[in-house]
Amino acid sequence: MSLHYLVIFSLVLLAAASSDALVQDFCIADLSHPAGPAGYPCKKSSSVTENDFFFHGLAAAGNTKNIISAAVTPAFDGQFPGVNGLGLSIARLDLAPGGVIPLHTHPAGSEILVVIQGTITAGLISSFENKVYIKTLNKGDVMVFPQGLLHFQINSGKGTPAQAFVSFSSQNPGLQITDFALFQNDFPTELVAKTTFLDVAQIKKLKGVLGGTN
Amino acid sequence: MSLHYLVIFSLVLLAAASSDALVQDFCIADLSHPAGPAGYPCKKSSSVTENDFFFHGLAAAGNTKNIISAAVTPAFDGQFPGVNGLGLSIARLDLAPGGVIPLHTHPAGSEILVVIQGTITAGLISSFENKVYIKTLNKGDVMVFPQGLLHFQINSGKGTPAQAFVSFSSQNPGLQITDFALFQNDFPTELVAKTTFLDVAQIKKLKGVLGGTN
Amino acid sequence: MSLHYLVIFSLVLLAAASSDALVQDFCIADLSHPAGPAGYPCKKSSSVTENDFFFHGLAAAGNTKNIISAAVTPAFDGQFPGVNGLGLSIARLDLAPGGVIPLHTHPAGSEILVVIQGTITAGLISSFENKVYIKTLNKGDVMVFPQGLLHFQINSGKGTPAQAFVSFSSQNPGLQITDFALFQNDFPTELVAKTTFLDVAQIKKLKGVLGGTN
Amino acid sequence: MSLHYLVIFSLVLLAAASSDALVQDFCIADLSHPAGPAGYPCKKSSSVTENDFFFHGLAAAGNTKNIISAAVTPAFDGQFPGVNGLGLSIARLDLAPGGVIPLHTHPAGSEILVVIQGTITAGLISSFENKVYIKTLNKGDVMVFPQGLLHFQINSGKGTPAQAFVSFSSQNPGLQITDFALFQNDFPTELVAKTTFLDVAQIKKLKGVLGGTN
Amino acid sequence: MSLHYLVIFSLVLLAAASSDALVQDFCIADLSHPAGPAGYPCKKSSSVTENDFFFHGLAAAGNTKNIISAAVTPAFDGQFPGVNGLGLSIARLDLAPGGVIPLHTHPAGSEILVVIQGTITAGLISSFENKVYIKTLNKGDVMVFPQGLLHFQINSGKGTPAQAFVSFSSQNPGLQITDFALFQNDFPTELVAKTTFLDVAQIKKLKGVLGGTN
Amino acid sequence: MSLHYLVIFSLVLLAAASSDALVQDFCIADLSHPAGPAGYPCKKSSSVTENDFFFHGLAAAGNTKNIISAAVTPAFDGQFPGVNGLGLSIARLDLAPGGVIPLHTHPAGSEILVVIQGTITAGLISSFENKVYIKTLNKGDVMVFPQGLLHFQINSGKGTPAQAFVSFSSQNPGLQITDFALFQNDFPTELVAKTTFLDVAQIKKLKGVLGGTN
Repeated sequence: MSLHYLVIFSLVLLAAASSDALVQDFCIADLSHPAGPAGYPCKKSSSVTENDFFFHGLAAAGNTKNIISAAVTPAFDGQFPGVNGLGLSIARLDLAPGGVIPLHTHPAGSEILVVIQGTITAGLISSFENKVYIKTLNKGDVMVFPQGLLHFQINSGKGTPAQAFVSFSSQNPGLQITDFALFQNDFPTELVAKTTFLDVAQIKKLKGVLGGTN
Repeated sequence: MSLHYLVIFSLVLLAAASSDALVQDFCIADLSHPAGPAGYPCKKSSSVTENDFFFHGLAAAGNTKNIISAAVTPAFDGQFPGVNGLGLSIARLDLAPGGVIPLHTHPAGSEILVVIQGTITAGLISSFENKVYIKTLNKGDVMVFPQGLLHFQINSGKGTPAQAFVSFSSQNPGLQITDFALFQNDFPTELVAKTTFLDVAQIKKLKGVLGGTN
Repeated sequence: MSLHYLVIFSLVLLAAASSDALVQDFCIADLSHPAGPAGYPCKKSSSVTENDFFFHGLAAAGNTKNIISAAVTPAFDGQFPGVNGLGLSIARLDLAPGGVIPLHTHPAGSEILVVIQGTITAGLISSFENKVYIKTLNKGDVMVFPQGLLHFQINSGKGTPAQAFVSFSSQNPGLQITDFALFQNDFPTELVAKTTFLDVAQIKKLKGVLGGTN
Repeated sequence: MSLHYLVIFSLVLLAAASSDALVQDFCIADLSHPAGPAGYPCKKSSSVTENDFFFHGLAAAGNTKNIISAAVTPAFDGQFPGVNGLGLSIARLDLAPGGVIPLHTHPAGSEILVVIQGTITAGLISSFENKVYIKTLNKGDVMVFPQGLLHFQINSGKGTPAQAFVSFSSQNPGLQITDFALFQNDFPTELVAKTTFLDVAQIKKLKGVLGGTN
Repeated sequence: MSLHYLVIFSLVLLAAASSDALVQDFCIADLSHPAGPAGYPCKKSSSVTENDFFFHGLAAAGNTKNIISAAVTPAFDGQFPGVNGLGLSIARLDLAPGGVIPLHTHPAGSEILVVIQGTITAGLISSFENKVYIKTLNKGDVMVFPQGLLHFQINSGKGTPAQAFVSFSSQNPGLQITDFALFQNDFPTELVAKTTFLDVAQIKKLKGVLGGTN
Repeated sequence: MSLHYLVIFSLVLLAAASSDALVQDFCIADLSHPAGPAGYPCKKSSSVTENDFFFHGLAAAGNTKNIISAAVTPAFDGQFPGVNGLGLSIARLDLAPGGVIPLHTHPAGSEILVVIQGTITAGLISSFENKVYIKTLNKGDVMVFPQGLLHFQINSGKGTPAQAFVSFSSQNPGLQITDFALFQNDFPTELVAKTTFLDVAQIKKLKGVLGGTN
């Protein structure tokens, strides 16, 4: 069977498709425009390169020289425009010995964690009966944290650093650390006390540390 | 345990996040841009205030001095930009004695109604076997109307006004009142007759009342 | 134009449709079967009545004779099978004088609140920069709380009760009260301390009140 | 490069996959179980055959020997289990000379129509300002009808039959014909009058034709 | 019952709605702006006409004078702005005698095909166990091809042309023809060989025909 | 402020919630029931333990002693019931020196890859203009592969093994390897030739290797 004219078919097809200025095999974020509820407008397909699908920013460990001896390095849509519209993103966790990612939620996505190095104790709390589920994870172990539920990660190895990658079912899952939400802003101490039942002294102490006012 | 350096961690985290010009904890509608299928572009987060989450327009009763003695006051995305992207909106129903919200559908959302005052008889019609489901609701009673199905609300109290709030599973559920769709436009009488089997005289009578032409 | 045979058409149509045992104009939950990620299996349409679209359980105030002088009464899928598959549910808030709904999130849905009686001060905290948005709401005022974000409601009226209805963009939005997640289970005190930076004494005090162990 | 052992890789892969009893490349409906909000449970993949992807029921014209000289033949999930979970279905329209598909909506899906034979005049009504959009379509012409909006189709050819295929963005879009919803059930005449402003005589006339009671 | 003032109600309603500059009964694509993950921004509703819901481009057969004796004519969002936001599109297949639509996938949508003329043999391959499902379809027969799975269509009639319409569960399902992906670009021959196990000579032969380089 | 009665509130809340037999903070798959389009039915919450959120199966390298010197080890819903309903899953890639994951697609999900060890050259092909995007990735580098598009991964390190984790925006993204779809089943050689333009000899050669028939 001769194939000489197959090219004609493909050109015809391309001609049809070319009247379509934009395609949506993918939608690399154009961060210069405002996002909408579904994400950012797409970069023109003619200017997309292999670099738009690529992100180097997780190759180096985050800086863990802080009180929690830990770092979260995100590759969400704001950092990595290639995830726009894909319902997916990733981040890197680094936990120095004793390090901890404090209790937090991701308001807009579920999380799947895989341990790359060391030992991590992780837990989540259901909203139903407030049940706590805690596991100690070693290299290669995987754990999921359903959307919006409080959870934490702790380096439970003895004196060794830990590392994990966490992926999310959202291009921008958000990150709400309970302590920062309570103590690192101008949330009036009286309202914090009223809505958490914490003692005022405790609130003021943590506000002092975290730079909260009011 | 000392907490002096926790602030460092949070600043590191903020620095990472700040390279992300927009966050999507929420997406307050910027009504000055055109919407897309998922809603309006988001207002810049730096200019969002508490007022963007707030809507006062349902506090007063709608004007029921009209033939149906009823009013629908919407807080959809066009009126309340804070619902943009949330898949949720609300409206207020006021029904004077004898008032009625005529047969209608919401093409883009389901509805949940709660009675605040008075007595309301509400009904919906399934598309399967055209079954009619009718209930009389008193203060605090709740009823749901699945997406796209014909339904109505009537003040069935004796001489007292009725009020309800209705929430929708869409930031803009739409509202298609059958009578208005048929009789308040230039839908040619002949076509109305052909597609509804109504008598021409009946059509002309209602067109006369509602301002329809053709 | 004669209409004598229109009935034939409709019967033909019904015959076609009747080969379809189940329709999905709606999907009233059959709570006797396990749910899946999208909700419960549907009750047979032949046994659906008007009562399946109706819920009376929010008509009476919840019991506010407790320390927070408040009550949340839900009409989620477990209580109100009619919301199954609709992406919508509702609840009633009652706040006696001084009442408060403590800081909490809904992991699976956004919320829209309308005040029915009294004065409520409500606030939410964004995950981006931990900004606090607080408004005082009066009768008829509306406020939205985007999915997964920490928020609270307080009766800020002087000596008068407050009431609100809250609707959700989910048939089961969940409710995770931070205090209960931390102090009303067997979450080990040491881990609570490590992941929240709260003092052990504070944790033990609240565990004592809320019945937490460990 | 030798390829002798590629089979080993594939067998390894299959072994891994085989521990997964069910796959979801597709989800042929098992109509013997109740549906849920997302559709029917899937038939076991081992019993799926080519016939599950195939439907013959649209090959013959529907019976148009009725007053509207028209027929709608659906291939929704109830008739064609292969569309389950695909967000897609199809139906066939046959319109004898003078035939009409009366004003109706599809509560759960948008529609795309392509004319196969004859001439069809179709229209839709927006909910915003009740604007009517009417087009006359010939063979090969396409028209869309957005979800939930009232629309109709009429054979506007002179004495020739018309045929169309209509596809939907749902496995079960529903079909609510306004006339049947109003006049082919036990919807009390008084309530029909109150909620549609139609004259009682008109209602009784159409109820008589369509078999409605009350 | 008098109807004189019904018009007042409707005007009040319109006034409320008019504060909402855009409605989303539909969202005709404005192709002059970049798309986002959910589609194109909407054309202003005031400039929408009946022509926006209409597409004539499938009325004529595609040019099948090419080696595969076949043509695909799409009515996706780029060609037919009316499908924007509807999760639906359509295309026309023309297959001259011996014509074939080569093995391909639609990365972003499922497909439903209906034969209009002739005989088509179509097949799809599951990802699970690589099972092949093949059917021969005649006029009026329907077949579905689930999202992302490899499939093909062949004119298997004896010397007669075939035609079909294919609808998709996406406004832009995409079309990836395996041969074009492999042989009609600068995909290095060495990498094609390594990732497909095809012989280099075979790759070079098809690259020659289809205009591929490297 | 005294806290003695807070427990009462929580008990009241639990009582309300307990009338809800099932909660959906999460939906651990009950693999003993058939799945539906949205996933498997949920395990009873009372029998959920921390192990349901945990998966150990990716800790060990897959067996790469095969012709492609590579292995894909999935943690999809069939292997890891904890991902059910979360729109998320993960897999492990092991590539011995010279190893390759042949050209393939995931019909139901997008992929994000992070390199754990070694050097991987990965590429994807758009459906629009068949453009090839290729990148060489080192430890910690990230690349995305949009849903349904052909892509591949090759160990391009000199003599060292490579490892990666790949996450997906689906609990069961599927995996369709082009070679297996063509040559590892009973797809008739004549049809393979007709729909791919490969030479019969080439097809028979690969069928021989992969165990295909017909």
